Amino acid sequence: MQRTVERMLRTHPEPAFAPADPLTACIYACVECAQACTACADACIAEHDAALGPCIRIALDCADLCQAASRVLSRQLAPDLGVVSMVLQLCATVCDACAYECRRHATTYAHCDVCAAACRRCTDACRGLLATTVTTYRSRGPYEAAEHAGV
Amino acid sequence: MQRTVERMLRTHPEPAFAPADPLTACIYACVECAQACTACADACIAEHDAALGPCIRIALDCADLCQAASRVLSRQLAPDLGVVSMVLQLCATVCDACAYECRRHATTYAHCDVCAAACRRCTDACRGLLATTVTTYRSRGPYEAAEHAGV
Amino acid sequence: MQRTVERMLRTHPEPAFAPADPLTACIYACVECAQACTACADACIAEHDAALGPCIRIALDCADLCQAASRVLSRQLAPDLGVVSMVLQLCATVCDACAYECRRHATTYAHCDVCAAACRRCTDACRGLLATTVTTYRSRGPYEAAEHAGV
Amino acid sequence: MQRTVERMLRTHPEPAFAPADPLTACIYACVECAQACTACADACIAEHDAALGPCIRIALDCADLCQAASRVLSRQLAPDLGVVSMVLQLCATVCDACAYECRRHATTYAHCDVCAAACRRCTDACRGLLATTVTTYRSRGPYEAAEHAGV
Repeated sequence: MQRTVERMLRTHPEPAFAPADPLTACIYACVECAQACTACADACIAEHDAALGPCIRIALDCADLCQAASRVLSRQLAPDLGVVSMVLQLCATVCDACAYECRRHATTYAHCDVCAAACRRCTDACRGLLATTVTTYRSRGPYEAAEHAGV
Repeated sequence: MQRTVERMLRTHPEPAFAPADPLTACIYACVECAQACTACADACIAEHDAALGPCIRIALDCADLCQAASRVLSRQLAPDLGVVSMVLQLCATVCDACAYECRRHATTYAHCDVCAAACRRCTDACRGLLATTVTTYRSRGPYEAAEHAGV
Repeated sequence: MQRTVERMLRTHPEPAFAPADPLTACIYACVECAQACTACADACIAEHDAALGPCIRIALDCADLCQAASRVLSRQLAPDLGVVSMVLQLCATVCDACAYECRRHATTYAHCDVCAAACRRCTDACRGLLATTVTTYRSRGPYEAAEHAGV
Repeated sequence: MQRTVERMLRTHPEPAFAPADPLTACIYACVECAQACTACADACIAEHDAALGPCIRIALDCADLCQAASRVLSRQLAPDLGVVSMVLQLCATVCDACAYECRRHATTYAHCDVCAAACRRCTDACRGLLATTVTTYRSRGPYEAAEHAGV
């Protein structure tokens, strides 16, 4: 799949908003993490263990937010870099929180161990891209959306 | 629909993480905005006007992020208030950016005018809830997730 | 929200693929049902009752499929009526299955009662639109996509 | 990512509803196709070519439906095999329609060529799993949900 992500970026009429390697890696990590969290939430529900409640909840949030992030990152036309940056920070934070919950159950439930690893990869990929994006952003000069964002 | 949102909150075994009125209003505004942005992006594509490119892009992002936000806000079990707060800030920001783009075309395209109004309502609802949530958060004492979030 | 849905349809440059009233009602019902199912799954998880496993699972499926349906129905540009028809049939089926599961727990858990009612409204709205869409489809002559669909 | 999908299936407390190999392949193909369609729609919008309207529209539908399918397929707890079967048929159909549109522009736009290939792989994976699932379904005896599905 990484090859498809990379080829879609390369054939897009607009240049990517960030270097292809960390962007490809981040889209891929978000998509992998969204799937792992969806599956882990389902597996945790099937364990019928009340202690897993917070783990299920954060995994469902993480799946939704990683999925939305993978879509925002897949678009190269007229990106709002302020929004992209917030998406990456949120994605890194929710993956971090989900990895933390999953790791607490990782010795009992192997699916939590697999999910925690996917979350950790996604946090790292988001932070890696965030550093790059901020650089790209600066090289483009003042962010025009900042004028109207009002937050 | 607001009545259904409110009844789901009231019948949940856990108390809502925020007062019912602004939470109901925010879930409703996110869901309405996600639909309006999906429809507006489609309408803009059908206009075949190259100037609408940035408007289509931010509307697609806004639809994805409002939809993810509506899901996170609909869950009351073990919320991670750090994540919820970031979701609300991101949602307010992307709605603001989408409203700004749509307003630029509102006199030419009536769908952009309708969409801008939905985005503006969503920004306001997110900021309204954000103020309340922060208060709730403080009344619960130090946020435990802060220990591990590392961001 | 129904007013926003209806205004987006009316201001779209393309005519809607179905009469405005049942289409508006169906988009609205899908969006309402997706939110109710997301909230009901979360409430059921919080009940810590193993008997709710199948209810949680179908509610999560129902939320995902109603949400996808609301997006497909919100688009009026070049609809593939074969796809639209399958989306409506699937949405009606999953809402029916979710309503069935929720009703089994409706006397014990009030959130299941609220959710079952939203599912039932969505099933009805999908079937109502399906009847109308099939008519529209026939009045347009043989469905061109049928040539290549191969299924 | 295929390894993560496969490990999540293997560590789930419930047996998968279908053999692991075609199920893993199908989840992976849905996720890949959803990303490719999201990126292709964005690239097509950036081409500013009115002839791409129908291609953008079906790509957006395909992204939403493949994504929903990937989630339904990732859950193993208490699957409703009637719903799963309809999801697979719908996903195969929309991928087929998107591949058809993308192929029409594949010589002009390389991103449409990449996207058409991802859609084709997804159609094949859905049909492959569908055959297997029907078999599994029969080996389990009469489908209990059929009693209440009413469609």
